[in-house]
Amino acid sequence: MVPLYGGGVDGVLRVRDLDEEALLAEFVPLLPQGDAEVPVGDDAAVVPVSDGRFVVTTDVLVEDHHFRREWSSGADIGWRAVMQNAADVGAMGAVPVALVVGAVLPGDLEVEWVRALARGMAEACGAITLETGAACGVVGGDLSAGDTVVLAVTAHGDLQHRQPVLRSGARVGDVVAHAGTLGLSAAGLAALRAGREGHDDVVRVYRRPVPPLAAAVAAARQGAHALMDVSDGLLLDGGRMARASGVTLDLSLAGLLDPRVRAVAQAAGVDPLPWVAGGGEDHGFLATFAPGTLPAGFRPVGRVLPRGGQPVLVDGATPTLRTGWDHFAGG
Amino acid sequence: MVPLYGGGVDGVLRVRDLDEEALLAEFVPLLPQGDAEVPVGDDAAVVPVSDGRFVVTTDVLVEDHHFRREWSSGADIGWRAVMQNAADVGAMGAVPVALVVGAVLPGDLEVEWVRALARGMAEACGAITLETGAACGVVGGDLSAGDTVVLAVTAHGDLQHRQPVLRSGARVGDVVAHAGTLGLSAAGLAALRAGREGHDDVVRVYRRPVPPLAAAVAAARQGAHALMDVSDGLLLDGGRMARASGVTLDLSLAGLLDPRVRAVAQAAGVDPLPWVAGGGEDHGFLATFAPGTLPAGFRPVGRVLPRGGQPVLVDGATPTLRTGWDHFAGG
Repeated sequence: MVPLYGGGVDGVLRVRDLDEEALLAEFVPLLPQGDAEVPVGDDAAVVPVSDGRFVVTTDVLVEDHHFRREWSSGADIGWRAVMQNAADVGAMGAVPVALVVGAVLPGDLEVEWVRALARGMAEACGAITLETGAACGVVGGDLSAGDTVVLAVTAHGDLQHRQPVLRSGARVGDVVAHAGTLGLSAAGLAALRAGREGHDDVVRVYRRPVPPLAAAVAAARQGAHALMDVSDGLLLDGGRMARASGVTLDLSLAGLLDPRVRAVAQAAGVDPLPWVAGGGEDHGFLATFAPGTLPAGFRPVGRVLPRGGQPVLVDGATPTLRTGWDHFAGG
Repeated sequence: MVPLYGGGVDGVLRVRDLDEEALLAEFVPLLPQGDAEVPVGDDAAVVPVSDGRFVVTTDVLVEDHHFRREWSSGADIGWRAVMQNAADVGAMGAVPVALVVGAVLPGDLEVEWVRALARGMAEACGAITLETGAACGVVGGDLSAGDTVVLAVTAHGDLQHRQPVLRSGARVGDVVAHAGTLGLSAAGLAALRAGREGHDDVVRVYRRPVPPLAAAVAAARQGAHALMDVSDGLLLDGGRMARASGVTLDLSLAGLLDPRVRAVAQAAGVDPLPWVAGGGEDHGFLATFAPGTLPAGFRPVGRVLPRGGQPVLVDGATPTLRTGWDHFAGG
């Protein structure tokens, strides 16, 4: 098939107007390659790491399940796809260095949207590189036709000679601490869903989350006992850490309500606390430390207790709030 | 949502009857973990490699574009998803050691199909481990709801202190050689499409391709100048190698027609050569070597000439056959 560079019948260039090679030529040159030894273009990429191991994680984003094209631009979606995977790498105490991207693209999708997707990914990689000091790029990918937009991003990290920090390492007596924002992304999504204007600050966190990767690396350097990404809500993810570690986390939500989250809740006439306790996708980090060793960027949010009847308590009591997000059950 | 372990109204357990955690519990325990230092279960996996670098490649398979559930079992599709990525790793001269899998699964899909998918992936990992001597496993993944089955597999390889073998290294005077089968997968797919029975041998290659990974490693050890996976057909992929290397490949198809391919073509009353020259997905390897250095498993299929007007010639002439597969243009 010959690429129809002039576009389709309405003058708009769409995915179906290009063959695979031409579509890749629109996408790949927009992406940084990081420090890849063999970059995009061969059967596979070759990526250097500081020590004899690499960190790897993958996430799938499906249109109308994880994002809506009317609520986020292509660039926003590209940014978020990179950052949510980068956060999982950071959650091991590693720095993100290389990603590969699988994308399913419907034929009627505008090629300009695909370019914007690549630009957003490139911007996110640039921000990661600035934050960590380690070059981060997109070193491979695969584009396929399909009915719905699907993005499958796999991110790779360099442990820089540190030991990985697991979610299973929390010890009784530790301070539980959090870095990053809580509830802003959920409040932003709620504002978008309600069509409510004037909350650009929280909507921006929903569209372009910024995981505090430098804080995660600092946590690893500081000897954090446990570390994880908060992507499904503080209570749900806290429960996962507690179960993995065989302990109970006693959390306190006092002081965690951001005034920007409160403003959205007030305008909507709802309780903001479920966003703080159960809202995911701010992509902050939850960690536990021996008392007195919190690095910059972390604030205490609770204590580690011996395993009790509940994995997570709020101010010593069983939580009654909605506790997080399940992608299959839908809430 | 409480998992309905008893199944839905018709007594069949479907994806929508389970939440994400329950679905993962059906899938993950079936998979080998290879030599992962941190396996499935944390924010990310940690995988050791022999030297300070890793090989990475990704492929997306979309239902009704890359596979049909009526032509392949879940186990077959899992096998193929692993093997086609493993072939890309082998094509760098590396051994596949770790994969991550992103899967989009419709709610009405039977959970037994998902289990079969995992079993097929596990079988493929087992076959790779036997072939290469290096443990290969599935170290991470993400399952999501969606309308169509999509599998996004990312495979990682260990170069075992060898230099990667690129597709761009072919030199004038080299012997072009191929390892593996040619046209069997395409003949098998044609037999399935036509509903033609009695061609189990070629149908099996379509459903369960076996890339000759040990031959690819032998090629790298032997100092192959160029190496790549043949996934879109000998002429199309040969053209890619030729363009990347700045040369022309003069191929000969004489002797490449497998009697099993001939049998399907005779039954269908068609010319088998387009399957041999343009059929992909046998996942053999194309390589170039200095004359006299072919390792076991490779047979000569042509010579490297100075760059001419065409990237690929067949017996010295411009090829007239259909030359391969484009996933967006559809053929």
